Amino acid sequence: MNLKEKIRVIPDFPEKGIRFKDITTLLQDAGSFHHAIDELADYVRGRQADVIVGPEARGFVIAAPLAYALGKGFVPVRKKGKLPAETVSMGYELEYGKDILEMHKDAIRPGQRVVIADDLLATGGTTLTAIKLVEKLGGIVVGVAFLIELTYLNGREKLSGYDVLSLVQY
Amino acid sequence: MNLKEKIRVIPDFPEKGIRFKDITTLLQDAGSFHHAIDELADYVRGRQADVIVGPEARGFVIAAPLAYALGKGFVPVRKKGKLPAETVSMGYELEYGKDILEMHKDAIRPGQRVVIADDLLATGGTTLTAIKLVEKLGGIVVGVAFLIELTYLNGREKLSGYDVLSLVQY
Repeated sequence: MNLKEKIRVIPDFPEKGIRFKDITTLLQDAGSFHHAIDELADYVRGRQADVIVGPEARGFVIAAPLAYALGKGFVPVRKKGKLPAETVSMGYELEYGKDILEMHKDAIRPGQRVVIADDLLATGGTTLTAIKLVEKLGGIVVGVAFLIELTYLNGREKLSGYDVLSLVQY
Repeated sequence: MNLKEKIRVIPDFPEKGIRFKDITTLLQDAGSFHHAIDELADYVRGRQADVIVGPEARGFVIAAPLAYALGKGFVPVRKKGKLPAETVSMGYELEYGKDILEMHKDAIRPGQRVVIADDLLATGGTTLTAIKLVEKLGGIVVGVAFLIELTYLNGREKLSGYDVLSLVQY
């Protein structure tokens, strides 16, 4: 199945010069969505993960069904202030300014094998921050799985030392 | 299985006097998460839905695995400016001010049977806005499914005329 042809490219979104990869056309196509999650699940089985972590918001769309498909738990990474219980947090640089991501302190037990799943690997900044949060809690990041990878942004270099899978490359 | 005991209640979040229902403890428990999605899937099968719609961000965590479990497509409802292609949009009143929700114009085909799924039925404002968006596109809302319902906020009244299911009530 060719997943790439189900992804819609939108020119000049969110700003001029960016060719945005719109996965909503893939998600609304039942067969493509199911196939994409199943391919990611095959990868995660090989990594023997205990739990799936996904960053908000689009990461939820990939990581939550992936956890369900595998019969594993799902743990969200959220922007500052969204999680109600005690958290660990970490800042990361954006093009303009800084953002802070958080996880619940009791979301991961020390020694748990974790796969982080998201829709898109761009520069890898969000993912690396999620990795650091998981490791701060004693989790072992055994893999990182993406629907899409923008290879020209070299996010894989930032994630060197981690096992990275993407289903569709640009 | 008692899903309610897997939900953590956090006092005074996000503000004093509110007892926040934290579903992350349920989501990270593999068995409870799987069971909750399977119960929602049984309901949706009975409603013969073609597609599952979920509002960001926590709605994605319920609606996306539900769509996967059923072998159906998933369609996101997002806050203004997040969806890259042509949208329909609708405002709704919040406690302070107004918010705008959007769906892609080509997300639903006229006559499609739609179930809207979210984590929480509170006042029903978000859900009613999502219903109106689906109907604007010609979709038929055949059901609305929630993990949690706060019965004392009477959201069900606002959704009268629609078929509503919740798995856990407070």
